[in-house]
Amino acid sequence: MYYGAIEAGGTKFVCAVSRNGVDIEERTSIPTTTPEETLKHVFAFFDSYTLISMGIGSFGPIDVNKDSGTYGFITSTPKPGWGFFDFLGEIKSRYNVPTAWTTDVNASAYGEFRKGGGQKSGSCVYLTVGTGIGGGAVVDGKVLEGFGHPEMGHILVRRHPEDDYEGNCPYHADCLEGMAAGPAIEKRHGYKAGTLAGDEKVWGMEAYYIAQALVQYTLILRPEVFILGGGVMKQNQLFPLIRTEYQRLLNNYVETPAPETMITAPALGDDAAITGCLLLAEEAEVQLP
Amino acid sequence: MYYGAIEAGGTKFVCAVSRNGVDIEERTSIPTTTPEETLKHVFAFFDSYTLISMGIGSFGPIDVNKDSGTYGFITSTPKPGWGFFDFLGEIKSRYNVPTAWTTDVNASAYGEFRKGGGQKSGSCVYLTVGTGIGGGAVVDGKVLEGFGHPEMGHILVRRHPEDDYEGNCPYHADCLEGMAAGPAIEKRHGYKAGTLAGDEKVWGMEAYYIAQALVQYTLILRPEVFILGGGVMKQNQLFPLIRTEYQRLLNNYVETPAPETMITAPALGDDAAITGCLLLAEEAEVQLP
Ligand SMILES: Nc1ncnc2c1ncn2[C@@H]1O[C@H](COP(=O)(O)OP(=O)(O)O)[C@@H](O)[C@H]1O
Ligand SMILES: Nc1ncnc2c1ncn2[C@@H]1O[C@H](COP(=O)(O)OP(=O)(O)O)[C@@H](O)[C@H]1O
Ligand SMILES: [Zn+2]
Ligand SMILES: [Zn+2]
Repeated sequence: MYYGAIEAGGTKFVCAVSRNGVDIEERTSIPTTTPEETLKHVFAFFDSYTLISMGIGSFGPIDVNKDSGTYGFITSTPKPGWGFFDFLGEIKSRYNVPTAWTTDVNASAYGEFRKGGGQKSGSCVYLTVGTGIGGGAVVDGKVLEGFGHPEMGHILVRRHPEDDYEGNCPYHADCLEGMAAGPAIEKRHGYKAGTLAGDEKVWGMEAYYIAQALVQYTLILRPEVFILGGGVMKQNQLFPLIRTEYQRLLNNYVETPAPETMITAPALGDDAAITGCLLLAEEAEVQLP
Repeated sequence: MYYGAIEAGGTKFVCAVSRNGVDIEERTSIPTTTPEETLKHVFAFFDSYTLISMGIGSFGPIDVNKDSGTYGFITSTPKPGWGFFDFLGEIKSRYNVPTAWTTDVNASAYGEFRKGGGQKSGSCVYLTVGTGIGGGAVVDGKVLEGFGHPEMGHILVRRHPEDDYEGNCPYHADCLEGMAAGPAIEKRHGYKAGTLAGDEKVWGMEAYYIAQALVQYTLILRPEVFILGGGVMKQNQLFPLIRTEYQRLLNNYVETPAPETMITAPALGDDAAITGCLLLAEEAEVQLP
């Protein structure tokens, strides 16, 4: 009997099974194409296991409101074929087992909270800075959701005084994602983000935006740990810059753990989300399907 | 046998008792002077009742971390005599009953959530805009706290393009409180806020700042209801201005309840906090002292 987990990303799906909810026994990675084709491969993977329950962390936006008629759907994504796709429904009609359903970043936050950098903390926020910016939080041991799931990547930020890039969020232009996700860096500076490693101005600006976000999350949620992942955070020099800028902006207004331990890369590396999905699957077992 | 409640404000303390945790049987209001004098009156009120438990919602910052050596203290307040005062300790050594200890705004949020404007919701945020700006949240039926309590009033905001007021937060200058609390309005415009009712520019600017805050809270917490209280919100014309600005800034990025029902004044009026304290007292009864 196996716990199943799906990390459903916009670029690839990772599927995994585990007997104890922690150690991954088998996994596969599937490119995200159409829902039909992608799910065909997902089913091919899971069909050979007897499943106890499943945990799914999906790219979004998704409907997490259990009272809603579109609960379990991926909603208004521009991704061809996936808009208002009943993802959870497809999984449940194939495998009649209890499921957990949340965002990929919530799953990452939960994985890090239970088995990674958040293990010793009471609450944590996971932020991915990649093609987009997304965040998830664990508060009081539970994934944070309200009327829907958070969209922490779209908060308003103050423009850096030397920044005249207009921003590229189609909804808000110069929100956090519009100013600081990978594509914004590349459009602003005209080069692939990975090739700009030596340019201090680029990363100073980037740190300014990310630190602002962490200050807002701190004042609203008071997490003990921030885990920063995603392609842009491969630039390790960002971490000390973000910590310094965070302290400058917060100006000791509230007590926090030491920034060196508070603001870190994912301890689980690329396995944060799939680990979170497995743990959520394990918990779904004891709940109603 | 009575539940006791203390709403401890910087200007006045409200004390109340209730037999059922809802209906207030007796209450008193005490000016906040020194801790010794204020508590003398508090004790005089409660000494005539046999208490089951007590709920306290205090002005802050306060220490809410149960593992801390200063748990139950009012911490770094500039208020003479109250800095690092062991408030909860004094109460517990006088009345050896279970206690609940949180901020005044968390108590207000909880009161509104259970008995006021948040009753039909899954989560709510209470924001007071007065001498300062403070916020509390109820998520999943529980008061939100992490490494400490939120300080939602000090989030960063974007400056209004026509605003050249430098801001008066001693920590951040132009944070939300520094730009939009009552004293900021009065210093910026040179008049008592209550006398500026007819000045459209004043309230347009104010709504811009408050709406920004609500957008940030929405994207991070996804509350179903916002309750806006405090002296500044007596300007009722602010509500529609805030709703319009909120929708403009959020730009439909996430689904929300209709702004008319989502963004409202406290249904319990000035009783939000004391009601929350009583309800928290009732819950403290079943927990360890
Ligand atoms: N080494 C790197 N340094 C800086 N930026 C990078 C690096 N690698 C990828 N990126 C940026 O991260 C983005 C991809 O983010 P990633 O988290 O890998 O994928 P996704 O967000 O699509 O899941 C790219 O748009 C690129 O701008
Ligand atoms: N009718 C009013 N209109 C606008 N602002 C007001 C009004 N009454 C009070 N205020 C503002 O609210 C502030 C007091 O806030 P209040 O919530 O009453 O008290 P506190 O925050 O001290 O508990 C004052 O500084 C004043 O600027
Ligand atoms: Zn945006
Ligand atoms: Zn401030």
